[in-house]
Amino acid sequence: MIVCVCVCVCVCVCVQGPALEKAVSAFRCVCGEDGVSLGEAVRQQHGRDESVHRCCPPDVVVFPRCVEEVSALAKICHRYDLPIIPFGTGTGLEGGVSALNGGVCFSLRNMDQVLDLHQEDFDVTVEPGVTRKALNAHLRHTGLWFPVDPGADASLCGMAATSASGTNAVRYGTMRENVLNLEVVLADGTVVHTAGKGRRPRKTSAGYNLTNLFVGSEGTLGIITKTTLRLYGIPEATVSAVCSFPSVQAAVDSTVQVLQAGVPIARIEFLDDVMIDACNRYNSLSYPVTPTLFLEFHGTESSLDEQISTTEEISGANGGSDFQWARDAETRERLWKARHDAWYAALALRPGCPLVGHVGDGNFHCLTVLDPSDSDEVQRVHLFTERLARRALAMDGTCTGEHGVGLGKRALLCEEMGPMTMEVMRSLKHTLDPKNLMNPGKIL
Amino acid sequence: MIVCVCVCVCVCVCVQGPALEKAVSAFRCVCGEDGVSLGEAVRQQHGRDESVHRCCPPDVVVFPRCVEEVSALAKICHRYDLPIIPFGTGTGLEGGVSALNGGVCFSLRNMDQVLDLHQEDFDVTVEPGVTRKALNAHLRHTGLWFPVDPGADASLCGMAATSASGTNAVRYGTMRENVLNLEVVLADGTVVHTAGKGRRPRKTSAGYNLTNLFVGSEGTLGIITKTTLRLYGIPEATVSAVCSFPSVQAAVDSTVQVLQAGVPIARIEFLDDVMIDACNRYNSLSYPVTPTLFLEFHGTESSLDEQISTTEEISGANGGSDFQWARDAETRERLWKARHDAWYAALALRPGCPLVGHVGDGNFHCLTVLDPSDSDEVQRVHLFTERLARRALAMDGTCTGEHGVGLGKRALLCEEMGPMTMEVMRSLKHTLDPKNLMNPGKIL
Repeated sequence: MIVCVCVCVCVCVCVQGPALEKAVSAFRCVCGEDGVSLGEAVRQQHGRDESVHRCCPPDVVVFPRCVEEVSALAKICHRYDLPIIPFGTGTGLEGGVSALNGGVCFSLRNMDQVLDLHQEDFDVTVEPGVTRKALNAHLRHTGLWFPVDPGADASLCGMAATSASGTNAVRYGTMRENVLNLEVVLADGTVVHTAGKGRRPRKTSAGYNLTNLFVGSEGTLGIITKTTLRLYGIPEATVSAVCSFPSVQAAVDSTVQVLQAGVPIARIEFLDDVMIDACNRYNSLSYPVTPTLFLEFHGTESSLDEQISTTEEISGANGGSDFQWARDAETRERLWKARHDAWYAALALRPGCPLVGHVGDGNFHCLTVLDPSDSDEVQRVHLFTERLARRALAMDGTCTGEHGVGLGKRALLCEEMGPMTMEVMRSLKHTLDPKNLMNPGKIL
Repeated sequence: MIVCVCVCVCVCVCVQGPALEKAVSAFRCVCGEDGVSLGEAVRQQHGRDESVHRCCPPDVVVFPRCVEEVSALAKICHRYDLPIIPFGTGTGLEGGVSALNGGVCFSLRNMDQVLDLHQEDFDVTVEPGVTRKALNAHLRHTGLWFPVDPGADASLCGMAATSASGTNAVRYGTMRENVLNLEVVLADGTVVHTAGKGRRPRKTSAGYNLTNLFVGSEGTLGIITKTTLRLYGIPEATVSAVCSFPSVQAAVDSTVQVLQAGVPIARIEFLDDVMIDACNRYNSLSYPVTPTLFLEFHGTESSLDEQISTTEEISGANGGSDFQWARDAETRERLWKARHDAWYAALALRPGCPLVGHVGDGNFHCLTVLDPSDSDEVQRVHLFTERLARRALAMDGTCTGEHGVGLGKRALLCEEMGPMTMEVMRSLKHTLDPKNLMNPGKIL
């Protein structure tokens, strides 16, 4: 279960002083005048993401152009004990780019090459400036695509760093299942390849799975400078659907039964009545204001017919009604727009608290909309989101299915994992980053 | 690419002495007289797996009955600096259970409970004595199954420890994708739960992915005492097939095209002409002696028709012929028997060197049959397997797709990963096991 809005008070500390000045001179030697910015606006822009976490700007932002520059910059930070905060697109939702202790933001947008596309082997390697939409545009004429879709047009290396997933995960898995190799610059500037340089095995049992140690490490173990990804064939046909249900339980029962029936559904998204109401208002739509499933099927024409009829039968038996189907791309897009705009629809909704869920993975977003200047309300929301997360933990679940830990979930992570498991995580962090320079204050 | 037989010279060292005597007394206090064995036969039996690696028996074998006993035994080993070698079913192929430095074998066969089956959530937790066949027998009446199938009836916790996969991986993934949580006893006896105690989230981004750090760690980081697994619905229908091809290239091209066409094939296995010949002889069969694919399709009746017709069309276009189909369980079993017996068929084949591959994952076993008492032959095979693995590395691949590193692949692992990545692995090992007691001499 995921709680999108979570409140956390943090104190921003800047590094400043002569160490920073010397470091900045050294940064300029590495990536030129244009590659180093001390400007207030640039720093502010790199100190926040799309969450409610307060902006903590870094002391300086650097714009390396290649892994060698990233490594050289990291070495300088290591020498002067400056924190390093990697920055992709700033679309995170847990405050992961906040420069709590000041330090140096590594903006990786200038490293934006799609490298080593192997069509026959279904894999590709990308630099951190490449977003998922940019990759899919690049792949347009190959018949291949990368399906992991967290909603935002995030950097793929950032998605690896935060273990992103999204609506397609029920069919295609999350970043955990789709990253084959990573190039990572460690805190001391060492460059490592988690599966060996240039390797891209679909399957391997060669030593410790370092790839999945860095996937989801949120910049606290190193800076991801290349990601090798699995690709998939674009499905021959796609059909989307919306179905209304008399109750939350009916929608959930349908989901479980569709999965049990082995329907290889590509997306199955739940919206509660409050969310549907907000989406209707935001997009001038007229869906029945009742618990609703948004669905998508990928496959061949005839396999879709079967998937659809099974799903219709199960949904009907659970009281599902008002089925709407969309086969062509334009109608599908219009249909899904309501779901995709859920975040913005929720922002327009106040007071209220809608629920939207990747229900095929048992993973929900509860969106609370608050006025951050009202400290009473902030406190109430904070208590509510903590109760909600603890409810998930009491059901053997997790406090964060998708957005990572960042700032907002650190206390809950300790409850989820227990002291011994946290100690193992801390010891791994200390081994790879003994000076605690990599994105300090996040996760742990 | 996988090389099954690999030769490695090792020197067995026993611990002996007063430390061992004291430890054995302490072991008996923990798990009773029956739970501790010093007998020669028992030790020999626990010092080897199914590979050609020489048997290095442990000094003593203990048979704990619960995680508390495992922890207590590990604490004793830690106090007396005794190596710990976890033992499941001994079906490994890289010498992973060899007690190179003597020490204490932890046989986990008495911990054989299937725990916490959640049918609606498609998950189950098992102790290390539960094998994959035992689990599937237990699940018989639930409509669910666990599909990862390395051939041997291995312990599921052992399969997690070695990151096992097998014929179904192209559809269902390997252990990496199917383990949700692990209970692990560390070298000092600490018990940790990689995803938090009792948790079983289908999807999580809560902190470092410790689960996948321990999956594939081959007992070198801790002893796995519980594994929580994803389950799948048993497919409505299954169809198996065999098809002959005029060349290796034609069989490989068919495979790539079937995957590109998005056929959700459950198994696609390649056997070269030497292997088919051996299988024919071993099982008195009469398959054409030519490169061959064994296939399996899972789904609904009508989706199977479509999968089959697409596959037939693609195979035909690549010169595939002599299609044989099997729909009922008995005929399917007869058809697959040839493939399942490949290992034993190969043992009966000498001289010769057949190839059998999980071609959907780009992963091959090359089986060489040798006389271990002929040192010249051993040396020749050793040089051959090294060349073969280096050929895989030169193609961006891995030296070990499935069987882990164990003893046989340590040198090649260094070539595959490079010095920096190996250094990271070593530092993680040192952090979790500073005394190097956990299965020493394996992987690193």
